[in-house]
Amino acid sequence: MSLAIKDDEVDIVIGALRSDLTTFMNEWRPMFSRFHLIIVKDPDLKEELKIPEGFNLDVYGKPEIDQVVGSSTSILFSGYSCRYFGYLVSRKKYIISVDDDCLPARDPKGFLVDAVAQHISNLTNPATPFFFNTLYDPYAEGADFVRGYPFSLRGGVKCALSCGLWLNLADHDAPTQALKARQRNSRYVDAVMTVPAGSLIPISGINIAFEREAVGPALVPALKLAGEGKCRWETMEDIWSGLCVKVVCDHLGLGVKTGLPYIWRTDRGDPIASLKKEWEGVKLMEEVIPFFQSVRLPREATTVEECIVEVANAVKERLGSMDPVFARAAKAMLDWIKLWQSVGSSSSRSSAV
Amino acid sequence: MSLAIKDDEVDIVIGALRSDLTTFMNEWRPMFSRFHLIIVKDPDLKEELKIPEGFNLDVYGKPEIDQVVGSSTSILFSGYSCRYFGYLVSRKKYIISVDDDCLPARDPKGFLVDAVAQHISNLTNPATPFFFNTLYDPYAEGADFVRGYPFSLRGGVKCALSCGLWLNLADHDAPTQALKARQRNSRYVDAVMTVPAGSLIPISGINIAFEREAVGPALVPALKLAGEGKCRWETMEDIWSGLCVKVVCDHLGLGVKTGLPYIWRTDRGDPIASLKKEWEGVKLMEEVIPFFQSVRLPREATTVEECIVEVANAVKERLGSMDPVFARAAKAMLDWIKLWQSVGSSSSRSSAV
Repeated sequence: MSLAIKDDEVDIVIGALRSDLTTFMNEWRPMFSRFHLIIVKDPDLKEELKIPEGFNLDVYGKPEIDQVVGSSTSILFSGYSCRYFGYLVSRKKYIISVDDDCLPARDPKGFLVDAVAQHISNLTNPATPFFFNTLYDPYAEGADFVRGYPFSLRGGVKCALSCGLWLNLADHDAPTQALKARQRNSRYVDAVMTVPAGSLIPISGINIAFEREAVGPALVPALKLAGEGKCRWETMEDIWSGLCVKVVCDHLGLGVKTGLPYIWRTDRGDPIASLKKEWEGVKLMEEVIPFFQSVRLPREATTVEECIVEVANAVKERLGSMDPVFARAAKAMLDWIKLWQSVGSSSSRSSAV
Repeated sequence: MSLAIKDDEVDIVIGALRSDLTTFMNEWRPMFSRFHLIIVKDPDLKEELKIPEGFNLDVYGKPEIDQVVGSSTSILFSGYSCRYFGYLVSRKKYIISVDDDCLPARDPKGFLVDAVAQHISNLTNPATPFFFNTLYDPYAEGADFVRGYPFSLRGGVKCALSCGLWLNLADHDAPTQALKARQRNSRYVDAVMTVPAGSLIPISGINIAFEREAVGPALVPALKLAGEGKCRWETMEDIWSGLCVKVVCDHLGLGVKTGLPYIWRTDRGDPIASLKKEWEGVKLMEEVIPFFQSVRLPREATTVEECIVEVANAVKERLGSMDPVFARAAKAMLDWIKLWQSVGSSSSRSSAV
């Protein structure tokens, strides 16, 4: 069912939080080498990047970021947020992004998982957010819609975002990671599914792909925790951005998928040391979720940019007085949309199928 | 995490649509023999039932149905609907029901799947309908909530219904079955998930379990197609009943799970011959889904019985004039609630956690 897409319609964006990318790049070589790569170096990272030969890539660092973005913006591209600069400067239809502490996973039969191919399949096959299919992705080989699935909904809608999963080190928060320090995820669930419309999901930025032309501006670096460090479990930027994307996709009739592909996530960081920092994020979520569950976008908001501006204004109004982090997030979202438009990556009108 | 439950808290209800249950019962013996069974014979079936020795069971047929229900009701217990009589006369907390053309499945490692144990685990562990967990059932061994999952929602809610899946012959409708007559489902997805609140799902009655005390009256035999026969793909009773259950669970804050356990579904019937009959159901779904997507129950409806009466009244009002099948369904739902109450199985107040 998958539409054929050309290799030059894809950018693979890597945020480099550590300098030596040799193992990472070499392990991913079979999947990455056909595509153009955008590597964005964390502006806080001092050392030179070590990148092996044989890739078609562009590297961006602090000087390039400063040149494009300037210093007048509230957006910070440090830490895990550096990848968003890659989203900004890409001119491709699709973007795939994987954390630099992830390696290709193997399926239960021992075969290497081609995460790139699976993400592209997820994005180019329709999504089904308006009714749940119990046998998972109805477009997968050997699968279909089950009895009772309305025929009028079997065409599906455009899939805008594909969220992959993690073997070995799962994507827990710091308290869970600290409590279950030795727990590893070994359950390979052979499924892709559409997250139903109206249902929120904790989208992780570790292993994702999206149609930049459809939802690019909604992947926004906005929520920066005060004590945020260089461990995933200390961050919230992707969770916040994911809530924004999901609300926008629901409003515009676009789909979000989760499930395959898995990546193999290696260990990094000390969960106990992170506990104190993370607590701020855990508390914030209790305010954030009711907000995103209840926010309604006006019918006039028909582009992703307009939707994000609406969400930003609602954040300012309803959350702004609770915690300064929310006022900063709202400001960053508005700045991001301006930046997206000025850099010229403005998306065309959303084309919900 | 699973609460211990006693064997005598469970009834296994089997609707017998064919007379020889020898293979069915013998194959299920390792899972069924500890529990009490209720076998309800399709009133249309003339032959004597053949049931092997060694089970603790009660058999109900047309005489018993007529005695309990009388002839003044609009409810028909023929065909697949005969099992609902078992739900009515059970006095147990939990009910598990499997079609008589299903056998125990094997997992990818070749081990027999204990569908009863998995259903009980699904029902006795909480459900999480208010936020999606990307790593599936957070209560499963080795699993947890992922980063970004709100801590206040990690306790979950009571799971009222567990919907299992099918290997070999999937649960397709007649058109799909006719088009893909040779397609078999061989994908074993090792996951249980909660269907998010607000999302509708085509619930199949082939392989289900539920807490009778929590949602029993919502499993209602109401939608009988005019040309309905003795093949699953010709029926809609379970789809309709499933939409009712899901709407009621969403209203009362109860959970519905789907996924494991799988059963092995053997072939029965001629999909081509069924095509004509099924078409009526396919058309009806296009009216049914928008209705169930938009129906809202009043806050005053706090018991399952009250909820079903509300749904029935809304069906009568909004769908009644479209097709006589809907007026009959509304009438059957109201009769069912009266019957449920008079037979004395009235559920106590819903105890959403």
